Amino acid sequence: MKGTITEKILKQHLVEGEFSIGNEIAITIDNTLTQDATGTMAYLQFEAIGMDRVKTELSVSFVDHNTLQTDFKNADDHLYLQSVAKRYGLYFSKPGNGICHQLFLERFARPGKTLIGSDSHTPTAGGIGSFAMGAGGLDVAAAMAGAPFRIKFPKVVGVKLTGQLTDWVSAKDVILEVLRRIDVKGGVGKVLEYFGPGVKTLSVPDRATITNMGTETGCTTSIFPSDDVTKAFLEAQGRGDQWVELIPSDDAQYDEIIDIDLSTLEPMIALPHSPGNVKKVREVQGRKVDQVAVGSCTNSSLRDLKMVANALNGKTVNENVSMMVSPGSRQVVEHLVDSGEMKYLVQAGVRMLENSCGPCIGMGSAPCSAGVSVRTFNRNFEGRSGTKDADVYLASPEVAVAAALTGKITDPRDLGECPKISMPEKFFINDNMTLKPLPQEEAAKVEIVRGPNIKPLPTFDKLPDVLEGSALLKVGDNITTDHIMPAGAKILPLRSNIPEISKHVFEAVDENFYKRALESSGGFIIGGENYGQGSSREHAALAPKYLGIKAVIVKSFARIHLANLVNFGIVPLTFKNPGDYDRIELGDKIEIAIGDLKGEVKLKNVTKGFEVELNHTLSALDAEILKVGGKLPWIKESVKK
Amino acid sequence: MKGTITEKILKQHLVEGEFSIGNEIAITIDNTLTQDATGTMAYLQFEAIGMDRVKTELSVSFVDHNTLQTDFKNADDHLYLQSVAKRYGLYFSKPGNGICHQLFLERFARPGKTLIGSDSHTPTAGGIGSFAMGAGGLDVAAAMAGAPFRIKFPKVVGVKLTGQLTDWVSAKDVILEVLRRIDVKGGVGKVLEYFGPGVKTLSVPDRATITNMGTETGCTTSIFPSDDVTKAFLEAQGRGDQWVELIPSDDAQYDEIIDIDLSTLEPMIALPHSPGNVKKVREVQGRKVDQVAVGSCTNSSLRDLKMVANALNGKTVNENVSMMVSPGSRQVVEHLVDSGEMKYLVQAGVRMLENSCGPCIGMGSAPCSAGVSVRTFNRNFEGRSGTKDADVYLASPEVAVAAALTGKITDPRDLGECPKISMPEKFFINDNMTLKPLPQEEAAKVEIVRGPNIKPLPTFDKLPDVLEGSALLKVGDNITTDHIMPAGAKILPLRSNIPEISKHVFEAVDENFYKRALESSGGFIIGGENYGQGSSREHAALAPKYLGIKAVIVKSFARIHLANLVNFGIVPLTFKNPGDYDRIELGDKIEIAIGDLKGEVKLKNVTKGFEVELNHTLSALDAEILKVGGKLPWIKESVKK
Repeated sequence: MKGTITEKILKQHLVEGEFSIGNEIAITIDNTLTQDATGTMAYLQFEAIGMDRVKTELSVSFVDHNTLQTDFKNADDHLYLQSVAKRYGLYFSKPGNGICHQLFLERFARPGKTLIGSDSHTPTAGGIGSFAMGAGGLDVAAAMAGAPFRIKFPKVVGVKLTGQLTDWVSAKDVILEVLRRIDVKGGVGKVLEYFGPGVKTLSVPDRATITNMGTETGCTTSIFPSDDVTKAFLEAQGRGDQWVELIPSDDAQYDEIIDIDLSTLEPMIALPHSPGNVKKVREVQGRKVDQVAVGSCTNSSLRDLKMVANALNGKTVNENVSMMVSPGSRQVVEHLVDSGEMKYLVQAGVRMLENSCGPCIGMGSAPCSAGVSVRTFNRNFEGRSGTKDADVYLASPEVAVAAALTGKITDPRDLGECPKISMPEKFFINDNMTLKPLPQEEAAKVEIVRGPNIKPLPTFDKLPDVLEGSALLKVGDNITTDHIMPAGAKILPLRSNIPEISKHVFEAVDENFYKRALESSGGFIIGGENYGQGSSREHAALAPKYLGIKAVIVKSFARIHLANLVNFGIVPLTFKNPGDYDRIELGDKIEIAIGDLKGEVKLKNVTKGFEVELNHTLSALDAEILKVGGKLPWIKESVKK
Repeated sequence: MKGTITEKILKQHLVEGEFSIGNEIAITIDNTLTQDATGTMAYLQFEAIGMDRVKTELSVSFVDHNTLQTDFKNADDHLYLQSVAKRYGLYFSKPGNGICHQLFLERFARPGKTLIGSDSHTPTAGGIGSFAMGAGGLDVAAAMAGAPFRIKFPKVVGVKLTGQLTDWVSAKDVILEVLRRIDVKGGVGKVLEYFGPGVKTLSVPDRATITNMGTETGCTTSIFPSDDVTKAFLEAQGRGDQWVELIPSDDAQYDEIIDIDLSTLEPMIALPHSPGNVKKVREVQGRKVDQVAVGSCTNSSLRDLKMVANALNGKTVNENVSMMVSPGSRQVVEHLVDSGEMKYLVQAGVRMLENSCGPCIGMGSAPCSAGVSVRTFNRNFEGRSGTKDADVYLASPEVAVAAALTGKITDPRDLGECPKISMPEKFFINDNMTLKPLPQEEAAKVEIVRGPNIKPLPTFDKLPDVLEGSALLKVGDNITTDHIMPAGAKILPLRSNIPEISKHVFEAVDENFYKRALESSGGFIIGGENYGQGSSREHAALAPKYLGIKAVIVKSFARIHLANLVNFGIVPLTFKNPGDYDRIELGDKIEIAIGDLKGEVKLKNVTKGFEVELNHTLSALDAEILKVGGKLPWIKESVKK
């Protein structure tokens, strides 16, 4: 991987460790971001660490997930976040300002910087050349406290783009093609680094769509070069001075290569219920559609909404379709209003929602029973839309608008001439919903506002040498963090309240899980491949921990969730022989002698009387963290030092 | 009341009864409207009646309440309503089109027509000279089936307007002044008919703000003349041909007169928790405000939003205020976009919500704990905002924008020069989200779409001659329908499912009520003055009926709720001697010999061993309806005849 952008940035930020694939390295973090649904917990943790001010170059606290406010909890969380930002030296983006990744890209992201965010789609900033990763809130808290961030040194996959996209085909189709080829765990342990002559044909927001949804491959991050296109974007945002060039060396070597000829791509679509279940639209067209939703951090940029507006101009959304648009930011809306394109949306019968995540995080806009929804989002996990039996398809804004007009899944090339989009040379800049950090002296006087739903963090004991309990749940492959800790309008508001949110752990998988966990004195989860894929939510580790889960034993893990398990003192273990998965049944009594987690680990099935060998990929540091009961006590110690 | 507009319209529509105050008359209904939260029930009832097509001149089914869609229920309801409208010959307004009363005023309401709607703010259309009343869904179903509507012949109060409003004072202040003078039951049994030289200074949307919130006085309806201003409005809506003049005769006589000199009015505000608790803003200014919400059927017209936009132009919402705007209709939005005024809202930091009732019906935007919210709405009942301990103030858009800018309750006259608003000569007309009635032949083929939450209507037995049970609940004065049957994001979606929604009856008043009702074999509610004020929701009668409530015995009733009780077979009774209220305690065993409800009614307190005399205002017809178990079986019989 010599000479890649990845190598260059990691070198500049290296604190510790060797550049060898799979080896753990520590890097300094320049920027952090949080959104509200994970942010309240991240800041409770930052408070528990006990620093007086963030140590990063720039940290931003956004509000974009919990904006429905069906009771006091969301608004209380917003005030908590606002007061924390004032107290500790962060930027604070008020609710209504827009979606964190869109706003970060517009106003904050810089080429060559490292960024971690408590949201799995933080790699969006890779579109501008940031090395941007999703992380648990606790890692973000630690980074804000000045701690380095640890990752496994990744394989660098060069995604070589040639040619140019054709009419009605857009950036979303590029990432859908990547997902079609490598599926939802094809990126694990890897960075997807885009290069080649096709790169310059993609705008920064196009690139950000691709790096955003790269997350669905399970990769560490995705990144584009910083070139003249990047420069022009930053200049249009009044941030031309923040541009640096960032391109791979001529002799850059990638560990793998994926070739994509943009000119041959067709409109693509991901079928229910996986972003990796990708087909050409042509192959699945014709299915009746009940709902179309445009927006999310994947496809809510000005270009995307201009495309939708112009394709709808003078037409009417099919009478059997409910179509909603959630713009990514106020900048996007202001341009749409200024150009008059907002009128095309309104006139066509689009439901204009607030600038927020909205339907993408199940925060409203649930489809009808057994409904079909075509969405420009990045995830279509079962139930995430708020409707358990809905079929959600993921596609580009072009495919979405075609479905909205025809009332069925339709190749947009059947709509006729493709609208020509004209982008502004300078964006409207208005940061008045982003509150700036206060000077230290003023900040010190700020009182933190805590509503009644904001509960102190639970604390956990050190791990014993032998873990005992029963197999409390057995699940299959590709369990997502939505399965483990559902989101949606009813549950997200509970994120600052661990005792309360824990009642919902695994409820879509097994409604008796909570009761069973309470009645046992702790236990284990048994799972299949790619356990914990999906969002970065650390509640998917913290809440099970609160319910007494001691270890999760699976065939393989998704990266961020594995890190979260370590952070909250749940031991992540894998079967040495995947076939052993079949030998453990729900309710089996289990003992695991973990010792210091350095040697061999064996699982003893006490009920059935056999032993199986387990693996783990824990570093010495991970083991140390686990043994003291998780990362929070560990960080408190290290910050003291 | 000779020669009033009220008399003229009632005469034209009279089917039965004499014009003498308090006497029941029956009138034909030209138009009906429903919104989704009451509409699903109204159409289940219409279906139960068994007609093939609506018999009215015009009936419209709107969707504006349950638009958050946190699960499948809302979307299923929308599809049910859409299919019913197609099946039975109604107009159907899709979600996102706007708020029913604003849309009805813009596109459907006509001077001189009678209208009932299953929403208590149906009198909004009185602003254009319709005789428009809120009614239970069952009454609306009956009207759609061609049945006349019965009301007590009202006293006609002439509200004489002189002078002209000054800068920063607007229509909302007129109705707040009316409420200050006559409070929340000062309108009971009356029509508020506006006249005098001040009328012509008010636009149709101004008038509609006044007639809309007139509902809060408990009046039968409010009405304005149809004059040149009305004509101009209808012409601007492309409906000039629908104008008729409608003015009181020169010798018109009102039963009472209220004099209001518009030029002396100041900015007014209703304090928590009653729309009748009105003060001058000057008297209460200075309190810190957390939230400002503009919108609702009271104040979401183009004029109102233009005022807000222009007052915000170039400024920023106070950093400690969250300000949201829910436009009344797409027409409003289209004009704001076209004129560029939408940019002022966005630039100032307003959260633009969907065109719907939104925060007004507790459908999102709940304030923070113990928060202060200034809203341009019509109701501030405790808990209605979604936050139990919030303090909600009601005021004009001008007062709202002043609070948003300063972060505290502020007289808008302190803001400096008042923006000049220019209204369009012709409104943009785009009805493509309103589906037209199908021709009979096509309609007959439509299949009704029923999601799993849409349950059949429960049926109830005939009433016995003696009602027996215990006093299941004792409440005080001014109990609202929000107390009886809460709305809000969690409960509204249950409105098509009586068994499920019944679990929430009175839950804010007494969380054990449901349990107690289930455990008893039915019983009684004891209450104070003005029982059942507020919305027209018939679930406040239907759900208690489902729980076995046999009679409600109170000091006095609000009109619409009384009618709903009769409709669902709960006997509404009042204490002859209000002091007897104090003699009944929770749990007392009670017997009420109602007989045929024509003679005297006595309540026997079996526990304490005494009798008290009760009154009722039931007509012979009401008695008949009650005895057969409610209006639905009664209508089915009459339609057969």
